[in-house]
Amino acid sequence: MKTAAIVAFDKFTDIDVFLAWDLLNRVKFRDKDFQVMIVGTEATHRSVSGLDLPMHATIEACNEADLVFFGSGPGTRTLIKDEAYLRRFSLNPTRQVVCSMCSGALLIAALGHLNGLSATTYPTAVEALKAYGVKVEEDRHLVTHDNIGTAAGCLAAVDLVAWAIARLYDPAVSHDVIASVRPVGQGQACIY
Amino acid sequence: MKTAAIVAFDKFTDIDVFLAWDLLNRVKFRDKDFQVMIVGTEATHRSVSGLDLPMHATIEACNEADLVFFGSGPGTRTLIKDEAYLRRFSLNPTRQVVCSMCSGALLIAALGHLNGLSATTYPTAVEALKAYGVKVEEDRHLVTHDNIGTAAGCLAAVDLVAWAIARLYDPAVSHDVIASVRPVGQGQACIY
Repeated sequence: MKTAAIVAFDKFTDIDVFLAWDLLNRVKFRDKDFQVMIVGTEATHRSVSGLDLPMHATIEACNEADLVFFGSGPGTRTLIKDEAYLRRFSLNPTRQVVCSMCSGALLIAALGHLNGLSATTYPTAVEALKAYGVKVEEDRHLVTHDNIGTAAGCLAAVDLVAWAIARLYDPAVSHDVIASVRPVGQGQACIY
Repeated sequence: MKTAAIVAFDKFTDIDVFLAWDLLNRVKFRDKDFQVMIVGTEATHRSVSGLDLPMHATIEACNEADLVFFGSGPGTRTLIKDEAYLRRFSLNPTRQVVCSMCSGALLIAALGHLNGLSATTYPTAVEALKAYGVKVEEDRHLVTHDNIGTAAGCLAAVDLVAWAIARLYDPAVSHDVIASVRPVGQGQACIY
């Protein structure tokens, strides 16, 4: 059984968590055993827009997940300095797909998994990401290296999730999931 | 003070409610008094993917909102037959912007506001929408008539919300909100 963990925290950017949540749940139409969790450190986390979202599990669930997806938001700036938080992660990108939206790249960098790699992030997080020694590709909405992917600009999540699903499964599953959310007349195709 | 109400219900399609929620909340960067509510009939509604979402108000809030946004999902098929539910709405598209994603068009039709108009909806809801006498424009992702807009294919929500914000405010506010979520390198621009 494959699993995905979406990392949320206080002041997460709504669209980053929810777009990944919806898209990844559509994988179940191709693999009914696929499991998607939203994980955090509290029972609920409040989004930057004020929604209280219950968590499915704690962040330790990331360490066994096949896909780990870091959302973004102002909350990342606090967490990257929180050593106790960071120590709870033990990710291994040789066996896990690890990816981020926007400032979520700061968390992957803080965990040491962008060492020597390039990445992309939201304009307001570029300098902070450079401070980790990461080469920031500021004009690219999606940058991938083997199992590590970073994307920037909320709607880039569509391409990021498509890439992640293709790595977990195959391009056909990825195509079907994305086609199911395209506007009609623009490649939309029902998956169920 | 302008307000928007996003209508949710049990088995709502996650992305339809959450994408509108995120995009509409960005209007606050241009009008800090703008208020966005997710409304339903219960304290919480469960999405089709299993998220329990607390409501901000009941559906009666739609009757005074400047923008009423109907999400979609399997839940619409039950609600369009629920006369007591439908009677709680008293919308007036001459003074309110009323719009829908996918099968949400069935609710606008059931409320009588698509009489004599064309609309679009998700492929699986086309026949049900035609049963209301609505001319369904199956290949168009966005169909608008004055203050009434219908869109189909989840990501068409971006264009639907852009249209709705332009009607509530002006094209500049709409442009800024949408630019804030575009992928970097594809027209992305920070709004804050």
